[in-house]
Amino acid sequence: MARTAHVHRLPMSVPSDVSAIEALFASGDLAPDAIVAILGKTEGNGCVNDFTRGYAVQSLRAALAPHLPPDRIDRLPMVMSGGTEGGLSPHWIVLSEADGPDTATGPSLALASAVTRPLSPSEIGRGAQVELVRDAVLTAMKDAGITRPEDVHFVQIKCPLLTSERIEQVAGDVATRDTLKSMGLSRGASALGVAQALGEVGPVPDTAIGSDWSLWSSRASASSGIELMSCEIVVIGLSSDWSGDLAVAHTVMRDAIDAGSIARVLDTIAPGAPIQSQADRLQAVLAKAEASAGGTIRGQRHTMLDDSDISSTRHARGFVGGVLAGLTGLTDLFVSGGAEHQGPDGGGPVCIIYRKDTPT
Amino acid sequence: MARTAHVHRLPMSVPSDVSAIEALFASGDLAPDAIVAILGKTEGNGCVNDFTRGYAVQSLRAALAPHLPPDRIDRLPMVMSGGTEGGLSPHWIVLSEADGPDTATGPSLALASAVTRPLSPSEIGRGAQVELVRDAVLTAMKDAGITRPEDVHFVQIKCPLLTSERIEQVAGDVATRDTLKSMGLSRGASALGVAQALGEVGPVPDTAIGSDWSLWSSRASASSGIELMSCEIVVIGLSSDWSGDLAVAHTVMRDAIDAGSIARVLDTIAPGAPIQSQADRLQAVLAKAEASAGGTIRGQRHTMLDDSDISSTRHARGFVGGVLAGLTGLTDLFVSGGAEHQGPDGGGPVCIIYRKDTPT
Amino acid sequence: MARTAHVHRLPMSVPSDVSAIEALFASGDLAPDAIVAILGKTEGNGCVNDFTRGYAVQSLRAALAPHLPPDRIDRLPMVMSGGTEGGLSPHWIVLSEADGPDTATGPSLALASAVTRPLSPSEIGRGAQVELVRDAVLTAMKDAGITRPEDVHFVQIKCPLLTSERIEQVAGDVATRDTLKSMGLSRGASALGVAQALGEVGPVPDTAIGSDWSLWSSRASASSGIELMSCEIVVIGLSSDWSGDLAVAHTVMRDAIDAGSIARVLDTIAPGAPIQSQADRLQAVLAKAEASAGGTIRGQRHTMLDDSDISSTRHARGFVGGVLAGLTGLTDLFVSGGAEHQGPDGGGPVCIIYRKDTPT
Amino acid sequence: MARTAHVHRLPMSVPSDVSAIEALFASGDLAPDAIVAILGKTEGNGCVNDFTRGYAVQSLRAALAPHLPPDRIDRLPMVMSGGTEGGLSPHWIVLSEADGPDTATGPSLALASAVTRPLSPSEIGRGAQVELVRDAVLTAMKDAGITRPEDVHFVQIKCPLLTSERIEQVAGDVATRDTLKSMGLSRGASALGVAQALGEVGPVPDTAIGSDWSLWSSRASASSGIELMSCEIVVIGLSSDWSGDLAVAHTVMRDAIDAGSIARVLDTIAPGAPIQSQADRLQAVLAKAEASAGGTIRGQRHTMLDDSDISSTRHARGFVGGVLAGLTGLTDLFVSGGAEHQGPDGGGPVCIIYRKDTPT
Repeated sequence: MARTAHVHRLPMSVPSDVSAIEALFASGDLAPDAIVAILGKTEGNGCVNDFTRGYAVQSLRAALAPHLPPDRIDRLPMVMSGGTEGGLSPHWIVLSEADGPDTATGPSLALASAVTRPLSPSEIGRGAQVELVRDAVLTAMKDAGITRPEDVHFVQIKCPLLTSERIEQVAGDVATRDTLKSMGLSRGASALGVAQALGEVGPVPDTAIGSDWSLWSSRASASSGIELMSCEIVVIGLSSDWSGDLAVAHTVMRDAIDAGSIARVLDTIAPGAPIQSQADRLQAVLAKAEASAGGTIRGQRHTMLDDSDISSTRHARGFVGGVLAGLTGLTDLFVSGGAEHQGPDGGGPVCIIYRKDTPT
Repeated sequence: MARTAHVHRLPMSVPSDVSAIEALFASGDLAPDAIVAILGKTEGNGCVNDFTRGYAVQSLRAALAPHLPPDRIDRLPMVMSGGTEGGLSPHWIVLSEADGPDTATGPSLALASAVTRPLSPSEIGRGAQVELVRDAVLTAMKDAGITRPEDVHFVQIKCPLLTSERIEQVAGDVATRDTLKSMGLSRGASALGVAQALGEVGPVPDTAIGSDWSLWSSRASASSGIELMSCEIVVIGLSSDWSGDLAVAHTVMRDAIDAGSIARVLDTIAPGAPIQSQADRLQAVLAKAEASAGGTIRGQRHTMLDDSDISSTRHARGFVGGVLAGLTGLTDLFVSGGAEHQGPDGGGPVCIIYRKDTPT
Repeated sequence: MARTAHVHRLPMSVPSDVSAIEALFASGDLAPDAIVAILGKTEGNGCVNDFTRGYAVQSLRAALAPHLPPDRIDRLPMVMSGGTEGGLSPHWIVLSEADGPDTATGPSLALASAVTRPLSPSEIGRGAQVELVRDAVLTAMKDAGITRPEDVHFVQIKCPLLTSERIEQVAGDVATRDTLKSMGLSRGASALGVAQALGEVGPVPDTAIGSDWSLWSSRASASSGIELMSCEIVVIGLSSDWSGDLAVAHTVMRDAIDAGSIARVLDTIAPGAPIQSQADRLQAVLAKAEASAGGTIRGQRHTMLDDSDISSTRHARGFVGGVLAGLTGLTDLFVSGGAEHQGPDGGGPVCIIYRKDTPT
Repeated sequence: MARTAHVHRLPMSVPSDVSAIEALFASGDLAPDAIVAILGKTEGNGCVNDFTRGYAVQSLRAALAPHLPPDRIDRLPMVMSGGTEGGLSPHWIVLSEADGPDTATGPSLALASAVTRPLSPSEIGRGAQVELVRDAVLTAMKDAGITRPEDVHFVQIKCPLLTSERIEQVAGDVATRDTLKSMGLSRGASALGVAQALGEVGPVPDTAIGSDWSLWSSRASASSGIELMSCEIVVIGLSSDWSGDLAVAHTVMRDAIDAGSIARVLDTIAPGAPIQSQADRLQAVLAKAEASAGGTIRGQRHTMLDDSDISSTRHARGFVGGVLAGLTGLTDLFVSGGAEHQGPDGGGPVCIIYRKDTPT
């Protein structure tokens, strides 16, 4: 017998719709206590006043309450990311672990999670957050049986943001008074914590967060939300301790239209396969998107940063979602906005969890 | 000597920035009286209160005034389409005709334009508009020397919309009192006019406009704008009467993520070429985008039609823009929103003007 | 002893923040089973995809669960209205009834509620909804001991809306396929049900709903939300069966800036009092706001109906909220958007619940 | 004979609609060379990508071109302020000066304008801008024959903002890289320039701009726009050198709902007059609006700063517009958003130009 990872990608008709998860509980296809983490792509604006994330979490907790003790629910990462712009589709990704037959001939998908202590509003977007996330990543890697940093293919983080009230609470001792901007600093600090854990960067001064874009992680993906004050971390990688028919690969988009990098990683999964032909084998696609700070893509101006009607994070999710949907044939993609220190400026990490076998 | 078509795709830093066009006039690379039509993708919301289109037209007219007589300017189609969501880039596409050496061995790009009389607000989105557009398309085809409907690869139309004021003007005798909805009916009526001209549909009752989605054109692309009351038509096709190194191809996206159709048409231009490798040969890419009426893409729910913060046309442009940018490697794509009766529900026509020769 | 009405106006820091209500339960100042209805002004967009309403209701239900049996909670009207534009402040209004000493010398505030059966999507915005609401209003009046229609000063309704999914569910047999528009038709049908119950209009044909603006109620206020399929009704009036120190008055704003009508009703409460001086006596202010269909206010153009970036309902709430806040000195005003058949075109009913005594 | 000021408040159907101004030219009621400044309230979003301001200016320049020499047009302040949220109405305010009979018994409305040199992007929102504006105000006061600072009742300024392109132009040496934020810093620096000129503040360090809200002017009103790089200044006051039937008064709103201050200044114009009864005498109302930084109004939370769908400046304009419309009975009010250093936090200066005589 060996540790085996499972991934369920499930539809969500409104942020409180947990019926697809409850159906798996009822059918016995998913044991509640096997769950490692639940990711949700909800249909809010993904910005400060996006309450679809909190609503989804409240609904998940109610669905889990009959099955799990309260403290187990408290420690379970529920990483909601708001924003299904364009044709993106709201969905849940349930990651779970169960014992299974040891049939794997190579490394298989490995998972683990961790949660930091609650942050003070003053710590958000600063060095304290970097350190807390770094330590949590190292803890989760150990739990997942992943010893080499290169076997980590993605780290998904959910982290807090500042609101007017929280800023007042610490008398204005905050990284920024701009609440929308606080989301970016929090995501950036989280990403740099991952980068440190994976050896991608060295020590990070406070002033580098949100400004020195040469520092980035190739595997971090952070979302910030109003509904939590801790950072929740999910590590996704490969390990020979695990078995099962799932594996994971990742790449980094160099800019918002870097379809070449995506095509190459898909080609490693199914060499020479036509575009979109592997849609059925893809269990989950997770990616980061952002508007490049310089205001251009390959020399052509974009307008995302000068649009005062729609946040640039919304623009970027819908657009990069289109790039990925075109190549994969899926729309229930976990594209998360705001890629500060997550991949190079204007680009971002992409993670693909897939079935190893070729469909008939 | 033979008629020869030219295409200039030029950057726009704000809607009034006509400097790239003026530079071509100054250098002699473009004669003002050779212009057949000017298309512009401007950075407004593409909806009712998008004044970037009118601002761009006013700026174009001022730039042309020193070079052309007023009535020539009045008859020149200036088709502005608002909305550069996601990474799309504001740009001009200047279509022109000049005599050149007759070197072509097959048919070449052929162009012509036409403008209808001004519509009454009562005619917008109704049968009268269908007929006016149909007749204008037939006129333009004749001017372009295109005799067979199958040699028309794209028809770009700019048409009017209703405002509160215009509705009052005709005492409420209008197709709809909803100003945003009037844009869709106007685009739909224009598209059905193209479909009739190309033999794609028969007679169209008023009640079919905006409701019977089984009627559509595979080559129509319509934008509506507050700044005009006529319909402006540009026909783009192939004709043996023309010479030059440009050609055009088209396809229809079956849904918003139909990358397969795009990949196939690109493959006819450069068989077996890697993704994005032909970016330099593509002179202009024109496409329509819209949210599918049923609320799903390949069975997965999208949220475009239920989002009261962002118009579904903005969502669709950014997302389909991403699909096309991923495949072509370009972001200055003329993606226009609102594809009523332009391709099947949720999909839309795509036109690619390209250089025939393979770059070295 | 006599029936006595109480009103608690309480702050809400996020849509799930029910702490102020729970504090009243804990202190004994409010008995859960005394609650007649809970109104909430939440900070969503108040349009189709406003999930703050459902989130607030889910949070309320969880707060009530330890205190009340499930079927009692199911029958309790929880009327959430989204949208706190401008300086408006999210808040709860808890209406309750308890026995108290019979000290009143005249009629006092009287309250009662009713809930209709769930509607089919096909019934929304049509005559069936009018009739269901009418009957529910008559039932609630009886429960409140209000016999004369003129003693009803306000009827607050929460009613359902259409979504893409619900439209599909009944195979498109709906009053409109436009989800945002369905909110208006549902509000309008509800208001006409109130108007019928109060003898303000006679029979209403389906075609009059959402089009014949000469039909309206002077005391109806309807909000539509995605989170329910029934109509919830709260009747607010005066009755000699009730005692206590609260009373209610109402007026109708003739247009969006009709401060005169507000000033007159405030003058009946405290004759000659300076502007804003009675803020402490006002227990709750409920009002409707909308953009006038003709596109003007007193002959001057407004832009609310032509703005494709912000729904006209959001514009109207913030603006009318300003008018009311200036006159009352309060910002936690229950201003609800979309006043179809609720007051004349562009205007709307206003209800003020106040303490009878003059503060010392 | 004496200098006499005139004010024309005129409707605008779209940003390019200058027909009401041209009609005055044609009728002889306004001589083009008498114009001191033109203010315009246009219907854009009032934020970074609001091109209605530039479109209006381009249209004004075209309307003036047949009447005035180019350098006179270049020096004429055209202060466009975007944003007519809620029921606010797009309009022009044309300020002009002509010789008239010296009939005044007291001081009359006095006007003058000035324009600074173009700023470098690096100077925007910094001390250099403060000084340039201060000097321009002093110059304009002298021109207007206003010697005492207390006789200045309003100073309207139009100032530049940063865009992604302008930031690149000076290699990032800017006060902020956030384009929306740059609008606030530019407005703030302009206001502090006025405050210095009027003796309201002493020297202002760079770091105080946009952060030390204890520094403010009671009479400054600044708008920023993408269409200019200079600062344009219009001084409005009272002077015994001038005659005519117009006068001006001002007040400061202490917060967004400070109707008391407005009521008091209206009472000085027409003591004891009922609400809205003086609408006909009011020639122009100019005001600033903003969301209070602390997130509350009189202790109640507002949501303007946490709303990522609508800029807080848009919220504030519509809401304060409602307060002012309720008290004055007008909707064509020049309410301008972003009141940094213009009045206290959350409040702002208000200026009322009125006819001295009482209407019959």
